[in-house]
Amino acid sequence: MFMHNKRLQYTVRVAQADPGLANLLLEQFGGPQGELAAAMRYFTQAVTEEDPGRKDMLYDIATEELSHLEIIGSIVAMLNRGAKGELAEAVDAQAEMYRKLNGAGNDSHVTQVLYGAGTPLTNSAGVPWTAAYIDTIGEPTADLRSNIAAEARAKIIYERLINVTDDAGIREALGFLMTREVSHQKSFEKALYSIVGNFPPGKMPPVPQFANAYLKMSQGEPPQMGPWNEGSGLEFIGEPEPAVDGGDGLAAVKLEKKQQAALKAMQQRLASDPSSDPQTGAELGMSEPSAKS
Amino acid sequence: MFMHNKRLQYTVRVAQADPGLANLLLEQFGGPQGELAAAMRYFTQAVTEEDPGRKDMLYDIATEELSHLEIIGSIVAMLNRGAKGELAEAVDAQAEMYRKLNGAGNDSHVTQVLYGAGTPLTNSAGVPWTAAYIDTIGEPTADLRSNIAAEARAKIIYERLINVTDDAGIREALGFLMTREVSHQKSFEKALYSIVGNFPPGKMPPVPQFANAYLKMSQGEPPQMGPWNEGSGLEFIGEPEPAVDGGDGLAAVKLEKKQQAALKAMQQRLASDPSSDPQTGAELGMSEPSAKS
Amino acid sequence: MFMHNKRLQYTVRVAQADPGLANLLLEQFGGPQGELAAAMRYFTQAVTEEDPGRKDMLYDIATEELSHLEIIGSIVAMLNRGAKGELAEAVDAQAEMYRKLNGAGNDSHVTQVLYGAGTPLTNSAGVPWTAAYIDTIGEPTADLRSNIAAEARAKIIYERLINVTDDAGIREALGFLMTREVSHQKSFEKALYSIVGNFPPGKMPPVPQFANAYLKMSQGEPPQMGPWNEGSGLEFIGEPEPAVDGGDGLAAVKLEKKQQAALKAMQQRLASDPSSDPQTGAELGMSEPSAKS
Amino acid sequence: MFMHNKRLQYTVRVAQADPGLANLLLEQFGGPQGELAAAMRYFTQAVTEEDPGRKDMLYDIATEELSHLEIIGSIVAMLNRGAKGELAEAVDAQAEMYRKLNGAGNDSHVTQVLYGAGTPLTNSAGVPWTAAYIDTIGEPTADLRSNIAAEARAKIIYERLINVTDDAGIREALGFLMTREVSHQKSFEKALYSIVGNFPPGKMPPVPQFANAYLKMSQGEPPQMGPWNEGSGLEFIGEPEPAVDGGDGLAAVKLEKKQQAALKAMQQRLASDPSSDPQTGAELGMSEPSAKS
Amino acid sequence: MFMHNKRLQYTVRVAQADPGLANLLLEQFGGPQGELAAAMRYFTQAVTEEDPGRKDMLYDIATEELSHLEIIGSIVAMLNRGAKGELAEAVDAQAEMYRKLNGAGNDSHVTQVLYGAGTPLTNSAGVPWTAAYIDTIGEPTADLRSNIAAEARAKIIYERLINVTDDAGIREALGFLMTREVSHQKSFEKALYSIVGNFPPGKMPPVPQFANAYLKMSQGEPPQMGPWNEGSGLEFIGEPEPAVDGGDGLAAVKLEKKQQAALKAMQQRLASDPSSDPQTGAELGMSEPSAKS
Amino acid sequence: MFMHNKRLQYTVRVAQADPGLANLLLEQFGGPQGELAAAMRYFTQAVTEEDPGRKDMLYDIATEELSHLEIIGSIVAMLNRGAKGELAEAVDAQAEMYRKLNGAGNDSHVTQVLYGAGTPLTNSAGVPWTAAYIDTIGEPTADLRSNIAAEARAKIIYERLINVTDDAGIREALGFLMTREVSHQKSFEKALYSIVGNFPPGKMPPVPQFANAYLKMSQGEPPQMGPWNEGSGLEFIGEPEPAVDGGDGLAAVKLEKKQQAALKAMQQRLASDPSSDPQTGAELGMSEPSAKS
Repeated sequence: MFMHNKRLQYTVRVAQADPGLANLLLEQFGGPQGELAAAMRYFTQAVTEEDPGRKDMLYDIATEELSHLEIIGSIVAMLNRGAKGELAEAVDAQAEMYRKLNGAGNDSHVTQVLYGAGTPLTNSAGVPWTAAYIDTIGEPTADLRSNIAAEARAKIIYERLINVTDDAGIREALGFLMTREVSHQKSFEKALYSIVGNFPPGKMPPVPQFANAYLKMSQGEPPQMGPWNEGSGLEFIGEPEPAVDGGDGLAAVKLEKKQQAALKAMQQRLASDPSSDPQTGAELGMSEPSAKS
Repeated sequence: MFMHNKRLQYTVRVAQADPGLANLLLEQFGGPQGELAAAMRYFTQAVTEEDPGRKDMLYDIATEELSHLEIIGSIVAMLNRGAKGELAEAVDAQAEMYRKLNGAGNDSHVTQVLYGAGTPLTNSAGVPWTAAYIDTIGEPTADLRSNIAAEARAKIIYERLINVTDDAGIREALGFLMTREVSHQKSFEKALYSIVGNFPPGKMPPVPQFANAYLKMSQGEPPQMGPWNEGSGLEFIGEPEPAVDGGDGLAAVKLEKKQQAALKAMQQRLASDPSSDPQTGAELGMSEPSAKS
Repeated sequence: MFMHNKRLQYTVRVAQADPGLANLLLEQFGGPQGELAAAMRYFTQAVTEEDPGRKDMLYDIATEELSHLEIIGSIVAMLNRGAKGELAEAVDAQAEMYRKLNGAGNDSHVTQVLYGAGTPLTNSAGVPWTAAYIDTIGEPTADLRSNIAAEARAKIIYERLINVTDDAGIREALGFLMTREVSHQKSFEKALYSIVGNFPPGKMPPVPQFANAYLKMSQGEPPQMGPWNEGSGLEFIGEPEPAVDGGDGLAAVKLEKKQQAALKAMQQRLASDPSSDPQTGAELGMSEPSAKS
Repeated sequence: MFMHNKRLQYTVRVAQADPGLANLLLEQFGGPQGELAAAMRYFTQAVTEEDPGRKDMLYDIATEELSHLEIIGSIVAMLNRGAKGELAEAVDAQAEMYRKLNGAGNDSHVTQVLYGAGTPLTNSAGVPWTAAYIDTIGEPTADLRSNIAAEARAKIIYERLINVTDDAGIREALGFLMTREVSHQKSFEKALYSIVGNFPPGKMPPVPQFANAYLKMSQGEPPQMGPWNEGSGLEFIGEPEPAVDGGDGLAAVKLEKKQQAALKAMQQRLASDPSSDPQTGAELGMSEPSAKS
Repeated sequence: MFMHNKRLQYTVRVAQADPGLANLLLEQFGGPQGELAAAMRYFTQAVTEEDPGRKDMLYDIATEELSHLEIIGSIVAMLNRGAKGELAEAVDAQAEMYRKLNGAGNDSHVTQVLYGAGTPLTNSAGVPWTAAYIDTIGEPTADLRSNIAAEARAKIIYERLINVTDDAGIREALGFLMTREVSHQKSFEKALYSIVGNFPPGKMPPVPQFANAYLKMSQGEPPQMGPWNEGSGLEFIGEPEPAVDGGDGLAAVKLEKKQQAALKAMQQRLASDPSSDPQTGAELGMSEPSAKS
Repeated sequence: MFMHNKRLQYTVRVAQADPGLANLLLEQFGGPQGELAAAMRYFTQAVTEEDPGRKDMLYDIATEELSHLEIIGSIVAMLNRGAKGELAEAVDAQAEMYRKLNGAGNDSHVTQVLYGAGTPLTNSAGVPWTAAYIDTIGEPTADLRSNIAAEARAKIIYERLINVTDDAGIREALGFLMTREVSHQKSFEKALYSIVGNFPPGKMPPVPQFANAYLKMSQGEPPQMGPWNEGSGLEFIGEPEPAVDGGDGLAAVKLEKKQQAALKAMQQRLASDPSSDPQTGAELGMSEPSAKS
């Protein structure tokens, strides 16, 4: 069961209203690396986790991310608070209101205020949050790696946001949020590496013949060598040819007679005549294209 | 520049047409952990990567994933090939066609064939592929971790698919694809750990005060302890209170006078009267609810 | 700040594993009328609400909906728990596993288990949750009406789900969740009607001339009359003609000379010749269509 | 059957071309509260409505909303008409064209014109319209409430749009559209309250024990009391504890022996060792983080 | 302005309720090739079309497609009508209701009825309609080609649907709808070819050097020759090499000094050490993988 | 199998970094008419094509489109390269960085750089690429028409982009890409018209009675006549009435007795009372609306 405390996990002090900055900060409210995505990633894992220790950890961190969602939402709300009242009460002439919202010359501020000057679950481009951002698949040795990566990404987005605002109160709160991603990443790494046999993930062993091969698929210049293509445990294959299984590299299926007959009928109906040189629709309309320039 | 070879990277031998299995295998064609997602994740990183070694690696693996997309697509095409001809040529009475496609009693087979008995870029539930699956953010210490996690997830999905089909040719091809995810994961790990100072990701250091704290946010039963909440580098905080910064935990913004006045006007216009007990719309309609059961 | 208690708000007792039922119940986990949608609708309103009473209420109910999300997720997890272990450990021959998951002859069960036998944030058709479900616009006289409607819809979906399962424990838990929607609807109605002047919503008055007109736009049979088209406060207009403003019903804009000239050039370049009877692409291919049947 | 009249329901007079304003007005063309959403909400209800009176009303209003879609689309088309010709005919040097479209310094104007200077079915942020906006569920006591709420929301968006433009012709047309939302809301309210027993929605009665309880889920400051939490018909519960059913608040399922065994095998394979303190991937890369600042 | 007639454009006679068939027919209600997509494709073109003849045609056909949407929706409604009442009134025991809806052993029927047994704007897999299906770009020589293609696709989907149902009334109505696509295709072709100079589309001429080249990008087997790669107006290039412009095939940009310095700093911070052979996270967990099989 | 050459198909020379232009060019990277959409449209057709000639052509062109995707991505990467380093290394004061990115006064530049200053698979408005853009249905006489249309649309978008940039190197590369669309259109037309009997698409003949009728659905002004409504092969129907089949234009289904009874019960429960004039929720709140203006 969830509970709520009316005090935020971190105090929010915003120097002045600024719908443009509000718009950018939505990235971590309803964006792919944002706090709702984090909370839902860990919550969906927590619900089905069988290990009591990991289950606890996942609920702890999911709950903290919900608290972060509230912090970032509260910052956005403060940044929009001035515009919200002014638009709702129509205190300015319309053209002046447009110019004001449009401060940095930007329709997206107006759009964002039109939406309600609130905290829509969108990213900074206005794209609605989608559960397609959540990569939980219900296998801890994969999910923990997803969590580690997600925390790393979120850390970077906070860093970039801090680099474009000089509001001290906001920078401080964003610094707190950024830091928590680092500590969560540590917990997820510890949890991953405390599972014996966490690699390869899952139960089924890889096919030995292909498990260590690095295939050079890109040509035109000499390959750059490094531990990722010839390090211990990897073998560099310079000229990978189809088909690696030694077969003919074609796709085939055994069909029943009736299926074969139907397929043949379809093929004949739709056969192209390679020896034709048909007049085309484009040619019908192609009157003096040179005259068009 | 990309080129194509008409031979597949792995030979595809399908024992018999089976639209139901085709439907499931779409998961790795147009699903979130599928081969298009993999190819596009690495391709978008390759295009902007500044390090020549990593750029090479990303193009190599992206190109291989495109080749895998072709393999899985070819399997799906073979599985659907019988139904495609039969439906297009209308060789059966309609009800029989429905029953046949509906072999395992499943509309989704019919739907999938209706779409063209082909290789739509959807997952196995029919959801169209979306770039929301791609988590590239253009920072190698985060993106490589995303790649490691993505390979781990893809490995698991292949394992699960192998566990629900007994077509030997398909199992063999899926085994190859599964194995390559393992080798790619190795390459990405090597690449990540050959970057000195890959943790914390990015450039900005965390706030020391919060960087090692594990916050217990879940109550009701004693916490499960483990390396993830009290391991080296982590400190367990059993009673985290709002607000950790020592402030009042509230959100505030400094508004201009005009903004304050507009906000006040809005608040008054929309004030609720807490002492009222208004009749509600629901009450207007609430005639003898007990008689409804 | 949010906190979590490891005990659910309502005890979950599931009689037996059943991936098919799990699949259906996802409707209220990640579906449009489900608990995440409810929680996020009220949470996004709470963050920007200016009235302290409504803000409290919105946080209370948002938090309860998160607790409901946990309940419905836990039911789904229990229903999938048997299949999850069996698939991960590959205890059966593949074909048997497929048949078993496919119990009611349904691929969507297999799909759902492939996803991880967990609690994906999708509806029962597998469509990922999207913030497009959230209709918060930051104006209480509209948002409270949205909330009333949302609770009514959720109540109905729970009722329908109860009507297709006979697992007593699940029915009891769903009955609790259904009932809470009714009580929330009451709270939102009370909150709406305690705002003086809650209709029309917003501040700007309607244009008197059009505010009470009911326009009959559908013909072919005599209109059905009722309070909705001629009740008090509404006037029935039987023959609404364009344009109701008395103008010519056309769209016009004043363009600058340069814009006019550019437009004219474009019109001429793209002019169609109404007196032509061109041969078409279709005609090129239209060889004996009657012979095709 | 639908028919069309070439005259608009309301005459559109636009003072001058303005792609920026066109962009904003798309909110009511292809946005969530826009006219297509309204038309499709009522149309999908009309098709399945069993009551002849409500069916008539729903078709009347759906048809009017299609006529509104045409009005708002025509305004957008007029606002874009100048830029469309100039871009298609390339009348300016490229940099000048960019600056001109970019009038208020805004790429989204250029984007919108690139799309065709037309009437794309997107909102003002460029997000494509989705049927996820439609909340029809086929139960009149819920759907009518959804309609009431939708009209209230649309009224507000029109009000906000009017507040940011001073083009008199557009303001007048938007005023008409805003007003019609008010009259539609009235009709839907009348229709709802003419259904005897419209509350609770649906047929199944709520569980009496939980139907009137208001649960205080938010702490940290004293609750704000009002009719929504202690009004008539609601009982305030100050300390709601898990689990309200008197059970242990845990989730359980009865599994078959084979399922239990598989689950146990999986648990053991994936068990974490809580007493370990493993070296982590992050630690491998954590070389002198302090030197990074 | 739109109007509505309560009579359908084509009479709908359904032999018996069948939620499974209803589910399939949604493909043409809310699917990508369905009637809403058609109506909106032509409507959005009509609104901005400058040529009076094409504008008329586009409104005529858009309006007819809306009438088709009503027909297909009415068929779906009839097919669901039995289940709707039975579920709403709970006339059966729950397990029986599930089995009955689940007639062909298919959850998607139950899901579809849960949604309201109505006419949701989804395709037959339950995916909500999206304006991403609409390819209008506001240029007649492109849009008319899009319309021709769209009509061809819709014709095929109707043909496939007819091939899986033997309900005579439905087959007849679908035959009407299929036929109308053919006639619309004719009109769009005539309209396209009555524009002088309709190819190449738009105003800007192609670069002569590349306008007629066919590039063989696929190797491994000899190319299949035909009019599409060596027909009149096309020249076959057997060995296309990068870069076709004669340059070095690399990407370059001129950066300012400050930008160069920042980039260099970033490159150094993130440089990988190609000579390293770091221990990886995977290796930490790779304990006896062979023992896992 | 796919391979990659490190040289681009066309050399990319960018004059200076410009995130605003990068943002616009994303339209052809991850937009609906962009190169990924093109590549995936042809690739999905190639995989299932039965005709060896068309299969070759589709793989050739799909592979070239992937090479174009790389070109347009490389241009975007170059345009963003300056900002990327500067933001990552935080070389400016925050406010200055914001102003700089915000050069043309546009948040979308900042947003785009925040995402990683890379090549996200979005359009120029930030909307993620979706497979809903792909209209492949697996029938060559329809798919080839879709391809023709897609090439026409892409040609236009490139033309518009060329018209808003004066960077000579970019204009040259875009000119190459635009030109290739023209040549691909030619190939697809040749391929279509080399199929005998390509119209009507598919196998089933249209219903003769309706195949040539043009229905005038739009009134209010005299129709514009042209070859599209009375040309050869089309017959103009000036007064199309419901129902064209001569029936009553109603929708009907035969229900079983039990279904009828359930439906009747539902109808009665939800009946509206047309003679009532109920007080509404809106009226409860409608206190002195005139005082609100």
